[in-house]
Amino acid sequence: MAEGDSGNPEYEYKYEYKQVIVVRTDLAMGKGKLAAQAAHAAVSALKEAEKMRPDWALKWLSEGQPKIVTKVGGLEELLRRYELARSLGLPATLIVDRGLTQLEPGTITCAGIGPAPVNEVDKVTGDLKLLRCRGRERPARWRPTAGAPPPIELRR
Amino acid sequence: MAEGDSGNPEYEYKYEYKQVIVVRTDLAMGKGKLAAQAAHAAVSALKEAEKMRPDWALKWLSEGQPKIVTKVGGLEELLRRYELARSLGLPATLIVDRGLTQLEPGTITCAGIGPAPVNEVDKVTGDLKLLRCRGRERPARWRPTAGAPPPIELRR
Repeated sequence: MAEGDSGNPEYEYKYEYKQVIVVRTDLAMGKGKLAAQAAHAAVSALKEAEKMRPDWALKWLSEGQPKIVTKVGGLEELLRRYELARSLGLPATLIVDRGLTQLEPGTITCAGIGPAPVNEVDKVTGDLKLLRCRGRERPARWRPTAGAPPPIELRR
Repeated sequence: MAEGDSGNPEYEYKYEYKQVIVVRTDLAMGKGKLAAQAAHAAVSALKEAEKMRPDWALKWLSEGQPKIVTKVGGLEELLRRYELARSLGLPATLIVDRGLTQLEPGTITCAGIGPAPVNEVDKVTGDLKLLRCRGRERPARWRPTAGAPPPIELRR
């Protein structure tokens, strides 16, 4: 099993496949907009994986679809990560907002990379920081999310 | 074609299927956490749809996977919406955070409802408000996102 993202054993969670969503922090996206763009990236990159490497997609889903959300400072850095992922043969998609609301039409907001083996994804995004909140939106009990287990679906 | 979510023609965008992600606002989730949970809900509810109604899933994807992120004030309201969706035969999943970081283990954070026909989803979430940002995180150019076209994937 590959190691999780954190060296802190308290947050250690082991999985073999992951997806990373890379978000631009230089855009004025509200929480809802950002969540929708990230969700779009997750679905799109999964669909890409299901075409390119259905075995990766299935294994990732069976592990509970571990995913983390990281940040880059701008478009150039986002494109660089995306191109690197593609050059390594990883499923990756760029998400373009159609504008009309908060952003200019055609704004590239984020990228979905993977699901793919953890060590492969880390070649592309391993050095990126997690997206956190800031200012007064920062929760009082804030602690790092890297290496935490992915959320689960409730069976009712 | 079903109508979009907004009565404002400037933001009108017509599609037949949609997915709604319903998020609790009473939890101290940072932006990154919220984005990851929403992405998890989007993928899980899509997987549910692919089992229950693969035709809905395919049509939704072909329309560009329109999705919106809405809010509820707490767990009870979230569960009520989820149960209503299930009782109507719609794909729906609840997302449970495993804790360790910002939230107590087992916290139900959000739900994914659909993809499903717009009029069916609206029976469950049509009256919910969009999740927006607040306070100083509110972008200067804030305008409503309802009825806006979904983001697109960039083909490179």
